[in-house]
Amino acid sequence: MPGPLISLLSDFGSRDPSGAIMRGVVLGIAPDARIVDISHDVRKYAIRDGALLLWCALPFLPVGAHVAVVDPGVGTARLPIGLATGRGDVLVGPDNGLLVAAARKLDGIVAVHELRDPRYRLPVISTSFHGRDVFAPAAAHLATGVPLADLGPAVDPATLVPSPIADAVVESGALVSQLVYVDTFGNVKLAGLRSDLEAAVGPLAPGDPLALTLGDGTRIETTWQATFGTVAAGETLLYEDSYRRVCLAAREADAAAKHGLIEDLAVRIERR
Amino acid sequence: MPGPLISLLSDFGSRDPSGAIMRGVVLGIAPDARIVDISHDVRKYAIRDGALLLWCALPFLPVGAHVAVVDPGVGTARLPIGLATGRGDVLVGPDNGLLVAAARKLDGIVAVHELRDPRYRLPVISTSFHGRDVFAPAAAHLATGVPLADLGPAVDPATLVPSPIADAVVESGALVSQLVYVDTFGNVKLAGLRSDLEAAVGPLAPGDPLALTLGDGTRIETTWQATFGTVAAGETLLYEDSYRRVCLAAREADAAAKHGLIEDLAVRIERR
Amino acid sequence: MPGPLISLLSDFGSRDPSGAIMRGVVLGIAPDARIVDISHDVRKYAIRDGALLLWCALPFLPVGAHVAVVDPGVGTARLPIGLATGRGDVLVGPDNGLLVAAARKLDGIVAVHELRDPRYRLPVISTSFHGRDVFAPAAAHLATGVPLADLGPAVDPATLVPSPIADAVVESGALVSQLVYVDTFGNVKLAGLRSDLEAAVGPLAPGDPLALTLGDGTRIETTWQATFGTVAAGETLLYEDSYRRVCLAAREADAAAKHGLIEDLAVRIERR
Repeated sequence: MPGPLISLLSDFGSRDPSGAIMRGVVLGIAPDARIVDISHDVRKYAIRDGALLLWCALPFLPVGAHVAVVDPGVGTARLPIGLATGRGDVLVGPDNGLLVAAARKLDGIVAVHELRDPRYRLPVISTSFHGRDVFAPAAAHLATGVPLADLGPAVDPATLVPSPIADAVVESGALVSQLVYVDTFGNVKLAGLRSDLEAAVGPLAPGDPLALTLGDGTRIETTWQATFGTVAAGETLLYEDSYRRVCLAAREADAAAKHGLIEDLAVRIERR
Repeated sequence: MPGPLISLLSDFGSRDPSGAIMRGVVLGIAPDARIVDISHDVRKYAIRDGALLLWCALPFLPVGAHVAVVDPGVGTARLPIGLATGRGDVLVGPDNGLLVAAARKLDGIVAVHELRDPRYRLPVISTSFHGRDVFAPAAAHLATGVPLADLGPAVDPATLVPSPIADAVVESGALVSQLVYVDTFGNVKLAGLRSDLEAAVGPLAPGDPLALTLGDGTRIETTWQATFGTVAAGETLLYEDSYRRVCLAAREADAAAKHGLIEDLAVRIERR
Repeated sequence: MPGPLISLLSDFGSRDPSGAIMRGVVLGIAPDARIVDISHDVRKYAIRDGALLLWCALPFLPVGAHVAVVDPGVGTARLPIGLATGRGDVLVGPDNGLLVAAARKLDGIVAVHELRDPRYRLPVISTSFHGRDVFAPAAAHLATGVPLADLGPAVDPATLVPSPIADAVVESGALVSQLVYVDTFGNVKLAGLRSDLEAAVGPLAPGDPLALTLGDGTRIETTWQATFGTVAAGETLLYEDSYRRVCLAAREADAAAKHGLIEDLAVRIERR
């Protein structure tokens, strides 16, 4: 019988030992835990990046306890929380918007509790490393079977800090979107799913001409494609990424660098 | 009884969650798998880098199912394949040259099958993330005991895309080689083994003077050494790396930066 | 019953496969080992960085066998050693100062042995990768129950290369310290603990004005704070980090970049 599944995500940086320390704390409490490090290289303080990566990753992980720490407010009054999902997971981290989008994708939030009980924290709580002192211990105890309600008082889900991931707005003939995340290939994830784009501009087929107008005035003329290999090396394409999001890429090239794209820029997508 | 061994290698980047998602998919199918992430920071699209790192790493890993994904052709007609080795491993990835050198080092390729059967893939196959949808599930099913032949039709090994790792050419008095890989220390792995260099220039002893003539005209005068610590800090040396390859380094320094070396340059090694 | 705990730390770089190869060697000898990679991205050749990260991490990991390899002297006469600690761990690595500070924090060094017996090494020992050939196998054998004394002759702890981590000097009204480590946030760990600083300047409360005079003449006026969130974004603070060290940071900013700080600079801390 394999041990419980615990995942870890943070902006602690893989050069530093903080992610491994969370792993060590988990193993001290749940010795047979199976641990998945989703990433410890989330852009520093970028709650939205962390939220998006969780949203991408968690549906493909087994049910488990998932710790996420992108926490510029560590040591202040922001709540440490655990979110129980409809799928059976618990998401653990700060109440700053990091967890809610992923939890909703795991069949929704069914309960929220504050992580307050000192029995489920390390004996000494630092002011700057709650990943180690609060969140990893909570997840490990939850994984060993402690009920979420034992960790602290219920929190009204309606009071949670909302997700920072913007949705796209469907207009007639145009999708009003935003640059949400530039991945390590330079592919740019946009706000909205393929279904949103099709709601705006109609059904898409490979080769359909599209134009993107960015908030800084840049215009990118490209085509809808099924995958990278159908255009020439270096050529820009718009496609449905493996999470069904609308994504801008360039074949075997860095689309963000090629077009000078940065996160948060607004973008309007239309047929041309 | 420990679970099956599964290794993962990709160019997905450790900031992004793709490597962890493959780990999650594996654990969903083979819950007790022991997983080794060889690297997720292979240079983007660099099939040869991935092939070389597999060639280095796999002989030191236990027998298992090994997933490798450096796959610029994802979503096109290139075959997803599994290679059974003489040692008992299965290597899983795209048929683009990535797997064959490592498989040969594991006592050779004994069978190749296309990974086609939908029972051993995720239910939905994206066009851009076959590591998640095809390769990780295949490896996990293979690790739980599914025979490779059940995953799809046999492929003639002679039809596989060949390895991109060049061999050195032994001439009388000179080894005609190439810069194959610059590691994170700035050490430069060359085409060819120590035995190739000795076949060209005779037996080597520490201190033997050697000259490298690079394809761009640069000449590097150096010496053969047993290890770094036998030369002065910053000094260049040629040595047999821990995989028996000929390697250029500088003690506690970055030899590639020092000499302006880049991958693919030709190099001719002679005594001086 | 979970398997033994083995941790790995190195400067091998997470792009290269060396860390994973150590993991593979461990699993070949101790198939049920639970492995924690503390970091493989320690700054190249930076023994002090590795020593400090071990000192931070190991107290939060379960008792186990801990391999650390920052080893510019690999292949020379420096000893490969195992240090048994009062807490029950064994630390394995080169005798170059890397291990001693962490071992002392784990209730002290109770025995030291040279790792010499070929039964507990790989069959072939390279000149440049003792992490694979000597240290990982030693740790795995130790984790399976082989007594440390079986691996080689005892070494007098007094003869070990001392830790490169400087202590702070407490003067009346000033702490004479040093910049020891810049983490991935740009936070700067200084020599000395909060207790040292309070021994020099008296009890500290949030908001207390402090001045740092650096060895290059720079003067930084800042305040003592409990955590980041109590100052404005970008503002510099001095605080007790989660390991009780004195640390300079800037809220949601890179303090090292902001002030042009580099490791090894001397710093004098006083009230202002």
